[in-house]
Formats: sequence, C-alpha cells, structure tokens
Amino acid sequence: MNIIVTSSYEKESLEMTDIHTPAETLCPVARAEATVGDRWTVLVLRELFMGNHRFDELQAQTEATPQMVAARLKKLEADGLVERRPYNQRPLRHEYHLTPKGNAFYPVMLALRAWGECWCKEPGEGLAVHYTHALCGQPAGLGPLCESCGQPLVRDELRAELNPAYAREREDRHNRFKG
Amino acid sequence: MNIIVTSSYEKESLEMTDIHTPAETLCPVARAEATVGDRWTVLVLRELFMGNHRFDELQAQTEATPQMVAARLKKLEADGLVERRPYNQRPLRHEYHLTPKGNAFYPVMLALRAWGECWCKEPGEGLAVHYTHALCGQPAGLGPLCESCGQPLVRDELRAELNPAYAREREDRHNRFKG
Repeated sequence: MNIIVTSSYEKESLEMTDIHTPAETLCPVARAEATVGDRWTVLVLRELFMGNHRFDELQAQTEATPQMVAARLKKLEADGLVERRPYNQRPLRHEYHLTPKGNAFYPVMLALRAWGECWCKEPGEGLAVHYTHALCGQPAGLGPLCESCGQPLVRDELRAELNPAYAREREDRHNRFKG
Repeated sequence: MNIIVTSSYEKESLEMTDIHTPAETLCPVARAEATVGDRWTVLVLRELFMGNHRFDELQAQTEATPQMVAARLKKLEADGLVERRPYNQRPLRHEYHLTPKGNAFYPVMLALRAWGECWCKEPGEGLAVHYTHALCGQPAGLGPLCESCGQPLVRDELRAELNPAYAREREDRHNRFKG
C-alpha cells in the first residue's frame, strides 16, 4: 500500500501527472485522451472557444481553483493546443489563445455538445446555445451537418445565441467570482 | 490545508467522486464531461465499441487496475451508458454492453479519433484502424463524411481493418495480461 499524504492542491497536481500516455500505443483515442482526458481541461477549452481568453474569466466560468486552471493551461500549452500572448507589459499579463491544434478540436466539442444536449438533459431544459448557420442563414441544429441546408458545420460559419437562462447562469458565475 | 491519507486504490475512488456536476448548469459540454470527462472512462468505452465486453479484456486493453475499471463501469452503468448482462450463472458473471445512450456517444469517439490521428501522431506512424464504408465499398477516411462518397459515417456502416502494428500491440497487451 502506498501512503500518499497530500493537500487538496497537491492532490490536484498529482492527478495531472497521473495522466500519462500508455506506452507505445498507436490508438488515436488514447493519444487524444492523454491531452483532453480530463473534464477541467475540456471546460477550459470550451471557454477559449467561447472567446474567454483571460485567466480570471476562465476560472470564473469553470468554477475551478486557480491552481487547477493554471495546471490545465500549462499542460495545454505544453501539448500545443494553447499559446500565451502578452496583453499587458507592466505588470506582464497573458491571454490564452487556441493554436491550430486547439482549434482543430472543435469537431470533438461540437459532437460532445450534441451528445450532452440529447442525452444528458431533462425534457424541457432547452439548448444552452442556439446556432445559426451563416452559410444559409437558418438554424444549424446539433450537427455535424446543418439541419437546414445539409452542409457540414464549421466553426467560422456558426453564429451563437445564448439561451437567456444560460446567459444568466454565466453572468451569475462572473458576478460571484468578482464579488 | 486538508490532509488526505490514502492508498493508491483509495485515491482512485476519490478521483471518481471528485467528478461532480457543476451545480445547475445548462451547458451540455459540462453535463457530458460529468460522465465522460475521464480518460479511463473513454478507454473503456473505446473497448466496448471495439466489441470487448468482458471485464478481463477491458482491463487488459486499457491497462488499468481492476479497481479503476470497476469504478468506471459502475459509473457508466449509473449514468446509463452501459448495462450488465449475465453470460454465466454459476458463478454469476456479467458482460458489459453499450445502451442506446452509450452507442450515441460514437460520433464523439469518431471525432476524437480524427483529432488524435491528425494532431497527436508523428508523420509515418499510420492510422491505427482503416475503415471501409460499407455503403459505397470505399475507404471511409476520418469523417464525419465518407471521404469516398460524401455521406455521413454511421457506425453500422463501417468495417474496421486494424493496422498490423496496432493488432500486434493489442495482442501483446492481451498476452501480457494472461501471462
């Protein structure tokens, strides 16, 4: 029996180092999960896709501790999905942006959203975000093809409109964090 | 500071209970990740999709401890993605099968595979699995549309052929586990 004595923050770091790649596997799912096989990492990516690039806002919307967010961003940067860009020099402050590898994760996010909307909600809760397909101007649906025109959905062609309840939920998180 | 004294197995259980749903969120990605936001869970699902239904084989191919596999299967069952079916009465033994909710996760798995193949491998490693699209008889590619005929890929219409190197890797894991 291994005895591990740890604070909750240290436990958090332990969890991150626990995510090791299985030795020598060709499986792309195992390779992908070595990077994104952690729910907080996916929530950070969700926020970056939603246009939140600053540490405080990532923390507010994921409801993770600063240590948890920092560990995820560090690993995402090491794995090549995120890059830091300075937005202030004195004091030095960074924003976090998706790289091409990070942006290429969007189809997974879209598929996860579709599954979550269809299978992880009660009837009547409603979609969190409605997308309009800019290509045809009609509702996009849950993808991967536009439910209106049948073309494959790509991120640049989606216009998001938040469900008022979801917008309020996000605003509440923001206010709780600032307050 | 919370002091947690734990064995590695207990730590594992702690990790699982740590996966709580953020209170009252409409976000489908957060809802989904409360179930599948753990790499071992996704590896168990991968094996179920590959047709492995028995505990030993799930353990062999994920290279997880029995406690880890058991915890994931228990949660997947509680979350409605997996059901147990007896295959032997004395002693009672169960197989694990995907439910409709579990099967509906396939598009996420396919998107994850595409991202992993494109972004988590070195040039020349080759695909782990080649799929033929039964609908047109041609190579399916990485989806979501068939690279040969342009139709959306659905699981029932995909015929898998394992890369010999990947087949060997899986056979080695099986033999190591039995040996």
